[in-house]
Amino acid sequence: MTEPLPQGSVIGILGGGQLGRMLSVAASRLGYRTHVYEPAANPPAGHVADRVTTAPYEDAAALAAFAASVDVITYEFENIPAAALDLIEASRPIHPNRRALAVSQDRILEKDFLTGLGLTTAPYAAVETEADLMEALDRIGAPAILKTTRLGYDGKGQARIMARADAGAAFAVMNGASSVLEGFIDFSREVSVIAARGLSGEVAAYDPGENVHRSGILHTTTVPARLSPSERTDAVLLAAKILNALDYVGVMGVELFVTSAGLVVNEIAPRVHNSGHWTQNGCAVDQFEQHIRAVTGWPLGDGSRHANVVMENLIGDDIDRIPALSREANTAIHLYGKAEARPGRKMGHVNRIAPKG
Amino acid sequence: MTEPLPQGSVIGILGGGQLGRMLSVAASRLGYRTHVYEPAANPPAGHVADRVTTAPYEDAAALAAFAASVDVITYEFENIPAAALDLIEASRPIHPNRRALAVSQDRILEKDFLTGLGLTTAPYAAVETEADLMEALDRIGAPAILKTTRLGYDGKGQARIMARADAGAAFAVMNGASSVLEGFIDFSREVSVIAARGLSGEVAAYDPGENVHRSGILHTTTVPARLSPSERTDAVLLAAKILNALDYVGVMGVELFVTSAGLVVNEIAPRVHNSGHWTQNGCAVDQFEQHIRAVTGWPLGDGSRHANVVMENLIGDDIDRIPALSREANTAIHLYGKAEARPGRKMGHVNRIAPKG
Repeated sequence: MTEPLPQGSVIGILGGGQLGRMLSVAASRLGYRTHVYEPAANPPAGHVADRVTTAPYEDAAALAAFAASVDVITYEFENIPAAALDLIEASRPIHPNRRALAVSQDRILEKDFLTGLGLTTAPYAAVETEADLMEALDRIGAPAILKTTRLGYDGKGQARIMARADAGAAFAVMNGASSVLEGFIDFSREVSVIAARGLSGEVAAYDPGENVHRSGILHTTTVPARLSPSERTDAVLLAAKILNALDYVGVMGVELFVTSAGLVVNEIAPRVHNSGHWTQNGCAVDQFEQHIRAVTGWPLGDGSRHANVVMENLIGDDIDRIPALSREANTAIHLYGKAEARPGRKMGHVNRIAPKG
Repeated sequence: MTEPLPQGSVIGILGGGQLGRMLSVAASRLGYRTHVYEPAANPPAGHVADRVTTAPYEDAAALAAFAASVDVITYEFENIPAAALDLIEASRPIHPNRRALAVSQDRILEKDFLTGLGLTTAPYAAVETEADLMEALDRIGAPAILKTTRLGYDGKGQARIMARADAGAAFAVMNGASSVLEGFIDFSREVSVIAARGLSGEVAAYDPGENVHRSGILHTTTVPARLSPSERTDAVLLAAKILNALDYVGVMGVELFVTSAGLVVNEIAPRVHNSGHWTQNGCAVDQFEQHIRAVTGWPLGDGSRHANVVMENLIGDDIDRIPALSREANTAIHLYGKAEARPGRKMGHVNRIAPKG
């Protein structure tokens, strides 16, 4: 068995947003310190980190000093420039690994990987030209959705195509970027599995959560999800298959569509995931601690659910609801310490806790 | 109603131990930053604080700069020199207030205050000389316990007197310090109430916990405590009486002995308390967040218990049990990031969670 990193070791976290913030808190519970690397000033994770480096991902000297100061490196978002990773990987282990990052940074690679595992995804086709798009539409049909291959999140870089006539406008939205056409999936609900794999290869998964989006941003996650026992089993096995295939270490979010023909993989995120925030108040070991356990060589923790939870994101002006939310019973508030509440910005979340039914 | 401190405000915390560490994490959940003031280097709270000042309590310039940098001041331990408080109180509000500190810093003042409220304490007498001690023993009887009036914690500065013949040795332990003789209480169990009072005067209390000590240090706290319904009510009402009488703002720990003649107050601590650590895994709002809510003007949160919990302290070498503890189901680990495991040093705690019966 691997020895876990000793007490007092430093975990480097690339990215200083709310996920890094909650990872840093979890690291403290296990006796570790964190060093956050973030280009933007005053990052939310910085308020609870032992150390912060404010520098762009192109600053080789800052990256090298960061890597030298930590014992292991992880990240809170998947769009880290490859050159930055090359540089730090030379001196410290990075978990999850480069392959997981590469696969999740590119929607085509991701779908090729998933279908290669025998899993079902939406029908898809790579699109470089408007002619590619028309050809893809012939095969996949409308409605469909055109997405940039790389760097999309929270509904950005996407255009719906309800009929062939929309194709030109959708192509223009891509602004010349490589893109992928995805067929619409007729799903009854969307769920996600937050799964973890440890350094020794053990796998654990939280109870799947049921997600509702608003304007392309996660609105609520409810556990338990409305799933049949076989769907629940399939969801967890499928997540384990993905983690094992990638020789993954850490927590991953796997978004799934529930259809009458079975589960369809929407996308994977090689990090702690917004739809796993409910675990903070529903489990003895939450997704943030599970991730820290994995990357530092601890055994995975007990992620069994001891309560039902509805997680609700607080987006933009939702922060103004705090006075009312602060008076609610059975409601745990988690704010991110962001200075400015812009529309669409994730400001915090609440977990509403109910006895396990 | 008072408006809570705005998001992003800074809470100053005097003391950088594990209580300050967990207060800092709770502050982050409510969108606040913390600035920790601690004489010792590398304090546990510093790993999760936005800012740390390392300076003695006698450094007037450092204290003034600290006070100027924060919006409100609280503390994690009660033995802060009065001169330091005088200095910072001139520029920023301190919660809990000076009277609560004064009362809890002095065992005689504390017992005078409690008995003045009509509450029961152990019989006690102030001891300055060996003659005082013999006279006090005549009145209170043996067995009894001699304690320094000020600055005692975790069983330090205490000597048991089983018979009059022990008096000289016990007096010597006090090393000339003012002390108090306390009669032994014949109690069936020790419980504590963690109670909070907000800026607007509202009071809330957690379910009492039952405490077991080893070598004068808290070993376990179990909730629910074995109390009759009337004992439970008495315990909570009594705590509320203390908080109201002190015009208290923040969380207080009230230690009680359960006797056949009713509840006897052992001592009060004007801060979050080791016997309240179970709330981290048993309540939507834990004692640390409750304290931050109180001192920043939030409404008090829902402290109702949604699970049964046994909190166990990890003292000194207990830290070596982490590999085994990390594999336990339903067990939440909270480590303090202390570099060295000395005998008697609190290194962390675990909360073992069970469904509410």
